[in-house]
Amino acid sequence: MPRSRQLLQLRWGDMDAYRHVNNVEVLRLLEEARVRAFGVPAADGSAPMLATGMVVARHEVDYLLPLDYRPEPVAVELWTGRVGGASFEVRYEVLAPGPEGGGERPHVRASTTCVSYDFAAGRPRRLSDAERARLAALADGPAGTGAPG
Amino acid sequence: MPRSRQLLQLRWGDMDAYRHVNNVEVLRLLEEARVRAFGVPAADGSAPMLATGMVVARHEVDYLLPLDYRPEPVAVELWTGRVGGASFEVRYEVLAPGPEGGGERPHVRASTTCVSYDFAAGRPRRLSDAERARLAALADGPAGTGAPG
Amino acid sequence: MPRSRQLLQLRWGDMDAYRHVNNVEVLRLLEEARVRAFGVPAADGSAPMLATGMVVARHEVDYLLPLDYRPEPVAVELWTGRVGGASFEVRYEVLAPGPEGGGERPHVRASTTCVSYDFAAGRPRRLSDAERARLAALADGPAGTGAPG
Amino acid sequence: MPRSRQLLQLRWGDMDAYRHVNNVEVLRLLEEARVRAFGVPAADGSAPMLATGMVVARHEVDYLLPLDYRPEPVAVELWTGRVGGASFEVRYEVLAPGPEGGGERPHVRASTTCVSYDFAAGRPRRLSDAERARLAALADGPAGTGAPG
Repeated sequence: MPRSRQLLQLRWGDMDAYRHVNNVEVLRLLEEARVRAFGVPAADGSAPMLATGMVVARHEVDYLLPLDYRPEPVAVELWTGRVGGASFEVRYEVLAPGPEGGGERPHVRASTTCVSYDFAAGRPRRLSDAERARLAALADGPAGTGAPG
Repeated sequence: MPRSRQLLQLRWGDMDAYRHVNNVEVLRLLEEARVRAFGVPAADGSAPMLATGMVVARHEVDYLLPLDYRPEPVAVELWTGRVGGASFEVRYEVLAPGPEGGGERPHVRASTTCVSYDFAAGRPRRLSDAERARLAALADGPAGTGAPG
Repeated sequence: MPRSRQLLQLRWGDMDAYRHVNNVEVLRLLEEARVRAFGVPAADGSAPMLATGMVVARHEVDYLLPLDYRPEPVAVELWTGRVGGASFEVRYEVLAPGPEGGGERPHVRASTTCVSYDFAAGRPRRLSDAERARLAALADGPAGTGAPG
Repeated sequence: MPRSRQLLQLRWGDMDAYRHVNNVEVLRLLEEARVRAFGVPAADGSAPMLATGMVVARHEVDYLLPLDYRPEPVAVELWTGRVGGASFEVRYEVLAPGPEGGGERPHVRASTTCVSYDFAAGRPRRLSDAERARLAALADGPAGTGAPG
């Protein structure tokens, strides 16, 4: 299954006063998985996959189970959803052992709509063929073939 | 219009390497507005409105305009959406001057599904009549009368 | 007394699993006070006071009392300590009501050594006379007249 | 050399508008290294090494080189400094490849004064013999034998 799987460390400071990983910090993990899967924007602003950058247009996040801090990394799996002219959807699952231990269980399911953006020009721009090919390589089943966004 | 309006300071550190307020930090602002509108959970874990706490089950966030750091606070307006047996929806708009200045414009629209939770018992619990009354007081138009969640 | 006094909001999310404002987040507050006192770096990187930017070289932070989350802002007072050729020291107190209420009490005392930095040239640069005058205006007593750094 | 060496992932979101890892986030890394070295406080508040918890009383942090985001982890090495009746000092180095690549170079040196704290009783408490033994095992040279704090 062509998913990207990123093993990400939690931080003790990700917990909030309820002593679970805070729901906002979960989005920080999704961001990190996205950055690692699609190429790290370099210090000078260049981005391996998306030459001129991208912006987040929308998030949907479902919290299925409370995520506890542990020193072992959690897995964030991500794949491509719908791909449009200048946008694409990233889908994720955050996987960690369940509250009773045992194997990995999904704790969070989410999707992000990203817009390919030309920061120099100050506006969205069409995805290139190379970018489409790279997104297609991470398409996971029928969802990845979807309609333009 | 019975919206709660919270004036919240941005922090310089909310910006990311793209020099806008980071999309994840926007959810921190929504959390803060929610906490202030529904009562501040005290240091001992008690919460004025939701006596036994609440958990976030889902977020939907639409980013309409990039949000720039400024020392002046932004406004987060929030109101009640659907109310169910043990859950309710909070809807928000983040309002700030537009990129060309001028009056307030919505930069972010979002909704959060909250579940009233009994942390001592470790499970969701039904909203009380007092809680329903308080949620109803923040209902903004027909959306607030919606079907059970 | 020529101190800068910045009223800064806490955020519920500043708390950690011990249910106090996390010690790391205190430095976020100091950063915010510093940015507001010395001029806000604009989105394009320009900075009203320090035309070419500045970097943090050192922090010393003493935590005197636990800081509790509250919706009311805390005060961060800051003033200039030692001023050197290409560096200056910022000193701070974080003031909030004490655990038993009553008047403001110092919860944190800290100092930061800042280096005036030319990001285009990639190296420190001497403070200009205008910058020295502005720093001198925030000198609080004999500490502000100190030896070169 | 009896140092604890923790390999910690950076996050893209640790960068600030200057496109380096923000100086405040460096303290988050130090916190994480400390938690991992001295035992992870469990979700119920228990802490393997420090049975009743600990609080941070003081930080000193020297920033030697700008730290750039990279997907590879950085190393935080830490060891015990002075140990007092109810307090101990943790010293750290953050190690990463230098700006021109090559081997590891120290980017940050820091120390934290921690106070062993009894949260139930609401006050500091003396370190136990078991805790002293564990701290001594991380003493790095003569500094670890230092005078009471």
